[in-house]
Amino acid sequence: MSNSSDSDALAGARERIDALDARIQALIGERAEIALEVARIKQAQGRSDFYRPEREAEVLRRVAERNAGPLDDATLTRLMREVMSACLALESPLKVAYLGPEGTYTQAAVYRHFGHAVDALPRAAIDEIFREVEAGNADFGVVPVENSTEGVVSHTLDQLVGSSLSICGEVALAVHHHLLSNAGTLDGVRRVVAHAQSLAQCRKWLDAHLPGVVREGVSSNGEAARMVAREDSAAAIAGRAASEFYSLPMLASNIEDEPNNTTRFLVLGRQSVPATGADMTSILVAIRNRPGMLHRLLTPAAEAGVDLARIESRPSRRQAWDYNFFIDIEGHVDEPRVRQVLDAIESEAAFLKVLGSYPRSVGFGAGSP
Amino acid sequence: MSNSSDSDALAGARERIDALDARIQALIGERAEIALEVARIKQAQGRSDFYRPEREAEVLRRVAERNAGPLDDATLTRLMREVMSACLALESPLKVAYLGPEGTYTQAAVYRHFGHAVDALPRAAIDEIFREVEAGNADFGVVPVENSTEGVVSHTLDQLVGSSLSICGEVALAVHHHLLSNAGTLDGVRRVVAHAQSLAQCRKWLDAHLPGVVREGVSSNGEAARMVAREDSAAAIAGRAASEFYSLPMLASNIEDEPNNTTRFLVLGRQSVPATGADMTSILVAIRNRPGMLHRLLTPAAEAGVDLARIESRPSRRQAWDYNFFIDIEGHVDEPRVRQVLDAIESEAAFLKVLGSYPRSVGFGAGSP
Repeated sequence: MSNSSDSDALAGARERIDALDARIQALIGERAEIALEVARIKQAQGRSDFYRPEREAEVLRRVAERNAGPLDDATLTRLMREVMSACLALESPLKVAYLGPEGTYTQAAVYRHFGHAVDALPRAAIDEIFREVEAGNADFGVVPVENSTEGVVSHTLDQLVGSSLSICGEVALAVHHHLLSNAGTLDGVRRVVAHAQSLAQCRKWLDAHLPGVVREGVSSNGEAARMVAREDSAAAIAGRAASEFYSLPMLASNIEDEPNNTTRFLVLGRQSVPATGADMTSILVAIRNRPGMLHRLLTPAAEAGVDLARIESRPSRRQAWDYNFFIDIEGHVDEPRVRQVLDAIESEAAFLKVLGSYPRSVGFGAGSP
Repeated sequence: MSNSSDSDALAGARERIDALDARIQALIGERAEIALEVARIKQAQGRSDFYRPEREAEVLRRVAERNAGPLDDATLTRLMREVMSACLALESPLKVAYLGPEGTYTQAAVYRHFGHAVDALPRAAIDEIFREVEAGNADFGVVPVENSTEGVVSHTLDQLVGSSLSICGEVALAVHHHLLSNAGTLDGVRRVVAHAQSLAQCRKWLDAHLPGVVREGVSSNGEAARMVAREDSAAAIAGRAASEFYSLPMLASNIEDEPNNTTRFLVLGRQSVPATGADMTSILVAIRNRPGMLHRLLTPAAEAGVDLARIESRPSRRQAWDYNFFIDIEGHVDEPRVRQVLDAIESEAAFLKVLGSYPRSVGFGAGSP
């Protein structure tokens, strides 16, 4: 192609883009007008449920279903999420309390789930987030529940036991591990420090690239980075933020064995969420003693063909010999087959509490940070 | 209105929103296809200027001009910025080095300017960002240039003196100050600690609410927060992040006297940017001695009716009696009247360097954080 026909083609492409932008913008404006209409009707009815998790999830799933490219589903759902978020904020932005400080994965989870048109309120501790939402100072809370490196899961589970809040959403973010060190080269590394779970998650990489090098488990990857920052021949496994914060060069990046390594967060609210057809139900079950009981507990679900996505046990605080199980079941508590399984479990357990039924996360993708 | 007609209205509104979403999504897909076409033509030409600051600025200005509500200009330009950012990233995401760590205002400035579909690379120091962009490891760099509280301006200015990079954009973010203290109430505050500039920016509020209370200047607001975190009757002026990081309760929020208090950032690149009709030109001028010279320097601009938006003086590193002036002029270096003013200044000065002509910032709004 000659330069002048290239220039013509570029100019033509630009004109088409400009025309498209005008139309996209006009449609977003129309959408915002309708969102205001909806808000007015709801206000007249005395309703305050402007944000409906099940409706959001349905809309975003349709976006992914309709997507014919070239943008990937994650990008397109993110863009449409932002459009929805901006329209919703016309009335008043949602207040979302989260485990801070700013710049953490939990903040990224807030924006992933709610878009950027929210008032994100960082809080220092998980129980504060529960209190803020319970008291109505925040509309929703976002807390980590499966953090593969920092071990904060248990605080969230413990808080869920006594709280009146429901789980009304989940967010999964990809998490990457890097090897941080002042050693200059891998040959100079004599010791690798990290949280035990991170060491485990990078085991194959460490075996291949740092065979025979001592591995030392510490309380968190942040602590590991802090320690090795003052050393010449030690390396830490940690995220980008730690590399930056401690000015620790990244000797190798994305060293996790499982490329889909994720952290999972829960969205907490005061409302319960209707079924969307692709839901998860989290329950808390207390039983008296473990051996045998757990198997009996799980039998009804197996027989009904209901999938148990996750199970976590925690010692109860009430009696030393009690155990709490946190169980995630595929489906919604309003579905008869899920309800039946819950009833069967309840008849075996000392105590059962439904923590929430909520849409499975939509638009999974990498976290930032 | 009856409940059933309300329900009908809500259902109708939802259907219209679904139809709009499908159309918005289809148009975004079309836009992405054209963006790929543009990239292919440019690649065939051996060009690498996939991101063109002047084109972005023009597109976003048109978005704001066309906007008929109900979303405000800042929100709508943000949404369209994200659409552009996602389309551009189809080829390969822009790499943008910035002054980290993550969670800082500078990171927020990166996303404000480039959208979220970029690879944002946190760096520990301003000179590292210059080096990364100069070496081609990053496409662009983002650094603070007018930070009202931390005083980092000078590092950026000093780096600009010797760098081959051009300024190709600016970002302004709103910055809020809060009063952080363990004192519980204002009555319990005996001392207010902050960077001197923050104390000055909150002077009226302090006069009204904490009259007679001792004010103490320290090196940064972060340092102030760290100090008062261990005290019962002291307060710091700082941002939300510090409140969170040091678990310091916010006794009062947004206490700055000037509600439009901002921090300004520069976007650095290897390319120079064509005129858009609303541009700024930053120059560096070295003169031998100050008295009288500055006035002579500014006379040509005044006579030509060219606005000087900003002027900063810095001692030069070359000779003790030299001064550098950083001057921002409204207009583009390719405009004859700007060119004339620069020529006139150059004839008076020991040295003149054009640091860049770039579009004025588009879509001004509050920062996050």
